[in-house]
Amino acid sequence: MSAPFDRLAIIGLGLIGSSLARGVRAALPGVTLVGYDADPAVRATARRIGLADTIADLPGEAVRGCDGVILCVPVGAMGSVAAEIAADLDPAAIVSDVGSCKASVVDALQAALPGAVIVPAHPVAGTERSGPEAGFATLFRQRWCILTPPEGTDPAAVDRVAALWRALGSDVEIMAPDHHDRVLAVTSHLPHLIAYTIVGTASDLEEITQSEVIKFSAGGFRDFTRIAASDPVMWRDVFLANREAVLEMLQRFSEDLSALQRAIRWGEGDALFDRFTATRAIRRSIVEQGQDDAREDFGRSHD
Amino acid sequence: MSAPFDRLAIIGLGLIGSSLARGVRAALPGVTLVGYDADPAVRATARRIGLADTIADLPGEAVRGCDGVILCVPVGAMGSVAAEIAADLDPAAIVSDVGSCKASVVDALQAALPGAVIVPAHPVAGTERSGPEAGFATLFRQRWCILTPPEGTDPAAVDRVAALWRALGSDVEIMAPDHHDRVLAVTSHLPHLIAYTIVGTASDLEEITQSEVIKFSAGGFRDFTRIAASDPVMWRDVFLANREAVLEMLQRFSEDLSALQRAIRWGEGDALFDRFTATRAIRRSIVEQGQDDAREDFGRSHD
Repeated sequence: MSAPFDRLAIIGLGLIGSSLARGVRAALPGVTLVGYDADPAVRATARRIGLADTIADLPGEAVRGCDGVILCVPVGAMGSVAAEIAADLDPAAIVSDVGSCKASVVDALQAALPGAVIVPAHPVAGTERSGPEAGFATLFRQRWCILTPPEGTDPAAVDRVAALWRALGSDVEIMAPDHHDRVLAVTSHLPHLIAYTIVGTASDLEEITQSEVIKFSAGGFRDFTRIAASDPVMWRDVFLANREAVLEMLQRFSEDLSALQRAIRWGEGDALFDRFTATRAIRRSIVEQGQDDAREDFGRSHD
Repeated sequence: MSAPFDRLAIIGLGLIGSSLARGVRAALPGVTLVGYDADPAVRATARRIGLADTIADLPGEAVRGCDGVILCVPVGAMGSVAAEIAADLDPAAIVSDVGSCKASVVDALQAALPGAVIVPAHPVAGTERSGPEAGFATLFRQRWCILTPPEGTDPAAVDRVAALWRALGSDVEIMAPDHHDRVLAVTSHLPHLIAYTIVGTASDLEEITQSEVIKFSAGGFRDFTRIAASDPVMWRDVFLANREAVLEMLQRFSEDLSALQRAIRWGEGDALFDRFTATRAIRRSIVEQGQDDAREDFGRSHD
């Protein structure tokens, strides 16, 4: 297989950018990698651990001569980063990104890079860790990467971005940006919002100590603390950028929660039982389709 | 170490009962184990896999001659199971349980077994699987077991139940039943209720297919599906039995969620960032205290 890019710039070297760099190194050794991060400390770490062939000190310098550029920055920073590279971007280069919401990113990239070849992407993968040392080459394996090319995008450009992600082990799906944002509002954004909320609620109780919350967290609470440990800047930007879809899903969630609350208040055991029974099948399908660990308890160690 | 019991009856052979049996076998081989389950199919499985020295066909038969009896049934069944064993129970036997809420269980056991030595317990451990084959001996290792002895309970009886759980690798904490129920409402019951709710919400959407929810669940949603796959009877009973504490914690959660909802609606990025930053420390403490896997992503496989 020939590599989809000769010289690839990765702008932003956090968890996703550094995983992408490692994945490309492992799967596509012929690709010349250039990295850049706005944080000098991250650039120094990236140089020390050899994330890319070159770590540039300026975004424009990073993208010069590249036929592919992947923006791996928080969605709120996409427009300004795109503006910073605009002057140095090869007109034939493909610009992509890894943002968790897409309609706002498509708009920001098109505004900052008029005429550029833009193929927005969202690899649906991650961990609770952040930074250049948190990344690993297999993060995207067996995960979906969603591409949301604007109408009229050259299909060959879409194919090259798809080939990049497939080389890293991902499956690729094409979707309209608005639909992406609604799907991810429920499968990703709402879960994060709820996790952040409940961890906050538990921290703020007066008569139950933080120490008790921590000690007895294995009853279920600890599951929520993992995604509530995700990067706060990334998630602030997601909620600001995907406001309408998140608010709509939140409204539906709140209605469903009120219905269960009412069933508890009135002692309606059958309603609770029915609701709790309906949710097992979806877990089974997620595991069957390889989207979660088949081992119980996520594969946590019990020794 | 001498075993805290000579002959121990385990009533209910699901995930917890069968893990307890396996744990006792492994850690306290001198203890004679008698098992019972109301479901004949579960008894047959228990016999086949050799969960106990004897699997009795009647609860009274199981407890006869035992100096310890542990009820491992849903909390709503505690009272009726206790009534079934009352006539055959040795007056000196210690009766304990593993129920997830304690005030209602203490009441039910005291009513059904007047004069008996009762030491209620709650091992804060579990997985999303159910049934006699789901159990394993190390489930309780490094987990807390909370004892809620009624006032006036013989301290020697409390010590024997504590010794049993410590032998299985648990740490033991003594607590008043009401306080237990409030602590667990936030660290266990509310998380389960929220997980059941969001999985239900995601299943009910019209314009987003079940298939999309499953495919893109690695964005966070899949984390919630694990605890939403827990036993529906067990959880129905927990919410009915711990109604007041759950409703209060739910009220606090809803208020906090409304505050975040408002921040999203009004674009208050700083408020979101502050909230999302405060939640990282608690995850760190949970991992440091051995209450969750130190590996990223719960130790999920990425290969």
